[in-house]
This record gives sequence, structure tokens and C-alpha cells, in this order.
Amino acid sequence: MKQIKAEIIAIGDELLYGQIVDTNSHWISQELDLKGVKVVRKTTVGDNRGDILKAFAEADKRADLVLITGGLGPTQDDLTKPLLAEYFDCPIREVPEAVEAITAFFKRRGREMTPLNVLQGHLPSCCTYVPNEVGTAPGMWFERNDTYWMSMPGVPHEMKKLMRDFVLPKLDRIFELPVIFHKLIKTAGIGESWLSDMINDWENALPDHIRLAYLPSLGHVKLRLTGFGTNLEKIQAEVEQQIRLVLPRIEKYVYGFDGEKLETAIAKLLKNSGKTLALAESCSGGYVSHLITTVPGSSAYFQGSVVPYHNQFKEKILGVSSETLKNCGAVSEETVQEMAQGVRNLFDSDFGLSSSGIAGPDGGSEEKPVGTVWIAVSNRKETKTKKLQLTQDRMLNIQLTGVALLNLLRIFISKIEE
Amino acid sequence: MKQIKAEIIAIGDELLYGQIVDTNSHWISQELDLKGVKVVRKTTVGDNRGDILKAFAEADKRADLVLITGGLGPTQDDLTKPLLAEYFDCPIREVPEAVEAITAFFKRRGREMTPLNVLQGHLPSCCTYVPNEVGTAPGMWFERNDTYWMSMPGVPHEMKKLMRDFVLPKLDRIFELPVIFHKLIKTAGIGESWLSDMINDWENALPDHIRLAYLPSLGHVKLRLTGFGTNLEKIQAEVEQQIRLVLPRIEKYVYGFDGEKLETAIAKLLKNSGKTLALAESCSGGYVSHLITTVPGSSAYFQGSVVPYHNQFKEKILGVSSETLKNCGAVSEETVQEMAQGVRNLFDSDFGLSSSGIAGPDGGSEEKPVGTVWIAVSNRKETKTKKLQLTQDRMLNIQLTGVALLNLLRIFISKIEE
Repeated sequence: MKQIKAEIIAIGDELLYGQIVDTNSHWISQELDLKGVKVVRKTTVGDNRGDILKAFAEADKRADLVLITGGLGPTQDDLTKPLLAEYFDCPIREVPEAVEAITAFFKRRGREMTPLNVLQGHLPSCCTYVPNEVGTAPGMWFERNDTYWMSMPGVPHEMKKLMRDFVLPKLDRIFELPVIFHKLIKTAGIGESWLSDMINDWENALPDHIRLAYLPSLGHVKLRLTGFGTNLEKIQAEVEQQIRLVLPRIEKYVYGFDGEKLETAIAKLLKNSGKTLALAESCSGGYVSHLITTVPGSSAYFQGSVVPYHNQFKEKILGVSSETLKNCGAVSEETVQEMAQGVRNLFDSDFGLSSSGIAGPDGGSEEKPVGTVWIAVSNRKETKTKKLQLTQDRMLNIQLTGVALLNLLRIFISKIEE
Repeated sequence: MKQIKAEIIAIGDELLYGQIVDTNSHWISQELDLKGVKVVRKTTVGDNRGDILKAFAEADKRADLVLITGGLGPTQDDLTKPLLAEYFDCPIREVPEAVEAITAFFKRRGREMTPLNVLQGHLPSCCTYVPNEVGTAPGMWFERNDTYWMSMPGVPHEMKKLMRDFVLPKLDRIFELPVIFHKLIKTAGIGESWLSDMINDWENALPDHIRLAYLPSLGHVKLRLTGFGTNLEKIQAEVEQQIRLVLPRIEKYVYGFDGEKLETAIAKLLKNSGKTLALAESCSGGYVSHLITTVPGSSAYFQGSVVPYHNQFKEKILGVSSETLKNCGAVSEETVQEMAQGVRNLFDSDFGLSSSGIAGPDGGSEEKPVGTVWIAVSNRKETKTKKLQLTQDRMLNIQLTGVALLNLLRIFISKIEE
């Protein structure tokens, strides 16, 4: 079987000048890897005719598939479309279907369309028009000499939708791809090297055609098992057998598999048990409420939350006693206990979650330095607390508190012994 | 003055497979941009002899400066050093000074040194050894035919130290660098093509040495003006003169400049006026509270928020009348008005902000389809509302509501006529 080679070309001065981080190329890499397509090169060029044409010609020589992002805006500095027309030697013509789609897009948004937007529906005559339902710049698909090309907008959610709806399914049809089966084990509350120590001998005993990768991210570690073969059912069964072997060792850290997130794992736990949740977020400032409400259908179990950013509101709205606040301080085990219980009462929920800490950069003391955070979870019978000692970075502290709070709730609901 | 052109080459399979995000290239881009060195291309290749040599040869043709990261580890799959020796046609020899430095590094860390680490002190004889004080792989500087090359480890803090201590100061000595001045104008509440229509003639009249770029992101458009010259004060004055010319046309959409965000612009407005803010977030679910509390020092003006995810709590906690909820529904102008007023009373704040909408994917109706969102802002004297018709995507709807809500507050505080 031939190894399919892909190149990714990102276009835009703002990427070269470092004003925007190119997250697109990384995301595309991951998706192609999952399909068994090998990315052999990523190139970034500026809004410059010669550089873009040279990048096209170089990729053409090496790759079976060329994915291009950026340079499709309606303004003069956006060169991708005219240069693709030039490179493939075909004129730009109106595509009535594309103009209609753009018109409908503006109508749905209730916004006025400009002549420049109409021109976004004019495309090189040799490309296949690929509708972009979430933006104004259409996708363009080209084929020549056994090389396939796709041009997409640089706006990440538009690019992702075009990849998911059009490009990725298309790859299965035009290429003979190897059979690959991936499974992700999602963990929280444990570091990469600790996890590695716990499963080291299992990892070393894996057969050659099954590979393990550690993918750490903020507060989480994902374990990715990848099996290679010729028969999907067989390779899937083998990967799942390996997961059954390793799972008992790390079970209490595992919140889910594949696309599951901590907040969707909690959604499942709460829905299954018919229980409800309320939050009192001080140092996490609404971040955990945000995570929970990103899940479709969260109104079934999420009652609401309070962000009492000043002590008087911890007292007034949540009923934390003024003695506790005076004697123990806002960042204390006692305060988060009363907050978790208070918010449960206010929203009449089964579970209450709370956070209070010093996110930084200011507000730390010798006794309670920046990064000191208390969190609590409470039900009608008991309240559990945890102290975190995080970083100097405000944003990191908010995010790490979020993961810790959701994981505390997961462990509490699942009745896992720590 | 000659424009100095640089290329960045990142080496490593893990970058192509999407297992690691290449933050190095972005950081290097920013640093070179500040120096007036123009990055003309970024390339990522895997741990593959042919691909790496080809990337070297291509960069050699185009660039005055080639910065290479990665592929310098002690193991067999790290190819950068032997391939640089091959490319520059010189043997690898022990550099006693480098071996000594590596030995000292291990001693300081109390770790054992392996024979492979000793070999990290062997370098191509045609390079200048650049000590790496924070790691084991030395930097290597090459010069040939007026092109300068630096090879650095892929570990970000090691690369940054080598750049700061050695490469950046060296650039000032070897190149005559131009003077560049960038300024970003940040806008919200208007699309790229509308903006372009409003300033088109100004844009076309810009002198050749001042360039404009449109950088759109979710709900925002940034305008970047870049001036090139020989005298920083002069070019800065020219760019700022151009900004004074264009600003009156787009002023009501401009929330700030350069690194400013909508939430920091609001921080400034509230701090300057000594006013405070409280939020009632229904469909935005805590997202806006999160944005506001990411700003250091936000406790000076942010009193707190309530996420009343069910109607009963809009009534119980915020005092929305049951008649309003019954007659107009939760997603209505009347409800967000009462929410904004209610949360202002609850937190005794100067401003109250509220949102209520159908984030989706479920819950829409013919009259109020998914993406229908009402937002409101209120002070002691008046309440303003706005209806948004957003997308089918839950996450996008949350984020776009966030931008619209912050922008509504900005316009209200600044007393801008819409």
C-alpha cells in the first residue's frame, strides 16, 4: 500500500510576523495522522505572490495532497484565490451557487452584504466549489496530475468544518488508506511520569503493531493507543483487549475515552443518576460554569451558579458566616465548605461545588501565596475539600482550578476512594 | 537598505504528527519582527535525511539568516547535527570546552552522564560553538556565502536563552537592520468587509512604506499598520498620523490598540470612572464572567455574577417577575431588562449586564430559532437591549454572545451613539 504524503501550507503575513499562532496546521496534522496520511512538511509563507507560487510548486512535486489555509478574505491583501487561478491556469468566474450561499449567510445573520462579499463567490473555473456554511469564503478543491488540493479559510472553525464535512470523508474515497484504529484513554489528576511508572511493564509488552503515546495537556494526560493492520475489526479487538489489561491499574484517574471531556463525563454521571448541580465560583470566576454549559443539554442537571467576587456577597447570597470569613479568611477550607453548602441550598441542588483562592498576580501573602486555592464539593450528607498549590500565572491557575474542581466532583459522585 | 530575510526550520516527527505544538517558530517570528528582520518562510520537516537536507538547500537559496530548532537530542533519531556537518562538508570533532560544559551541567543537576551525552560535545568543525547554559545540546553557528545559520535545541526555554544571549545581539552586529513600527487597531461589532468599505480610500492613499492588514477573529477585526523606514521616531509619527486620519471614521468600533482586549478596555473604562459591574448570564453560562476575571485586578470593579440557568432562579435570585417570564418567555427583551436591573440591585453595582438566549443545538422554535439571543445593559438611569441572531453552533453562540455583551457595555459606558 502506498504511503499517502500530505503538505500543509499556511498563508498570511500575520503568521510570519508572529501576530497570530497558527493552530490550524497543528489541528490538520492531528486529523491526517488519525487517517494514516503522512504529513511530510508544513510551510508558512506571507502574502507575497512569488513566495506563495513557489510554495505551491514545491508542494506539487512532493505531495499527494496539499492543504492550504488562509489568504481568502475579501480584501486586497488576500492573494490565495487569484494565485491558485494563476497556478492552475484558469480564469476566475462567478459561481451563482456560491454567491447565493454567501447572500443567504448574510441574510441569516441579519447583516448587510458588500460588493467585496459578492466577489467571494467568484472562483477559479477549474476548482470544485465547496460550500462554507459558517463563513463567507468558500472552500476550493483542485485535482491535477494525481495531486489533490484544498484551499480553506484561515478562520479555525471554518477550516475545521470544511475538513470534517468535506476533506476527511473525501480522503477515504480517493486514497487507499491503511487501517488504523486509535483509542484515547483520558485521565485527570495524575502527572505523565507517574502514570508512566504505573504502566511501564504493560507498555513494554505491547506488540509492535500497537503503539502508545502520552499526550499531556493542562491538568490532563491522554494515553493514545494506535493499532495498525489490514482488518479493522481485528485491530480494534486487539486494542480494546490491551485497554482491558491496563485499565484496572489506572482506573481512578480515567474519566473517559476518545472525545469525552471531563465536563461531558460529569454530564453523563449526573444525567444517569438524575441529580443536579450548582456552583459557587470565586477564584475560578465563572470558568467552570462556562465549561459545564458548553455541553448541549446541560440545563437538565445544571441549576446555576454564583460568582461572589467579594466577601460581602459570599455572606449575603450564599450565607457564609461572617465569623468564618473573619477568622479563617476567604481562602480557607471553612469558607469553601460553607460556599458549597450555601450554593446547594440556594439552587436546591443535589451537589454544590465551590472555589476560593489567590489567582494572582497580586494578593498573595507569606501564609497564602499566589496559587493557593481551596475547593469543595458537597451533597446533602457530606462535604469534601481539597487544597491546591498552583502556579504564579493567573490564567493557568484559573484553568487548573477548573480541572481540579470537575475532577473532585467526578470522584465524589463515583464514590472513588482517594 | 537591504531587507534581511530569515527562514525558520523546525525539525521533528512529533511536530508533523501533531503531537507537539510548535510554539518556537511563533516566538522566533515575533522576536525577528521586532528587530526588523523579515521572516519569509517557516518550514517544518520530520526526522528524515532527505527532507532535512532539501529544507537546508531551499532556505540557503532564499535567506540571509536560517534559524533551525530541534533534532539535537542525544539519540539516533536526532539528525540535525550530522546533517549540518554533511551540508557544510566538515567533520564532527570533539570540542573540549563543550564536553566540559555538559559535564558541569550534569554535575550541577546531580544527574549521571551517559556516553551519549559526551558525544553532544562533539560538533562540526566549521561551526562556532555556542554554549547552552540550560541544557545539554550546544548551539551551533555557521556562516557561508553571506548566509548565517544557527542551530538550536527544540526545548523552548533553551532555544529562547540562546536567542536572547547570542543570536539577537549578533544580528545587530552583522546586519544593517531597518526600522519597523507596527500598530494594531482593535475593533468589535463590525465585519471585515464593512470596515474595508469604510476606509477603502484612506487605505489606497497610504504611502508605499506603510502597509495595512486585516486580521479577523471571532467577533473582532484587527487592523495592523506597519511602517518601514530608517528612523523609528519618524516612522512611528507617520503611522500615528495615519491612525489619527482613519480613526474618526471607525471610532465607535475601536476598543483599543495593540495588546488590548475587549475585557481590558472595559477594565480601563470602569477603573477610570470608579464604577462597578455585575452580570446575569443565562445563555452565556459564565463565559463573560470568566473573560472579565482573567484580567488581573478585576476585583476592583467586578462585584460578581449569577448564572440562573432555570427560570425559577431568574425569579428567586434576580427578581424577574413571574408575569414577564410567563408572558414574554425567558428569551425576551423584557426578561433581559429585568435581569440586568435585578443583578445590579443584588450586587449593588453601577452597571448590570445580562444575556438570555437559545444557544442550541436544541430548544429552538419557529418564532425563536437556535441562535436567538437577547442581551441588556443597565445603569441606575436606563436599560439598553439588543437582539442577536447568531449561528447553529452552541460554542460559537456562547463566544459571540460574550463579545457582543462586552461591546454593548463598552458602547454604553462610552456613551457612543449607535
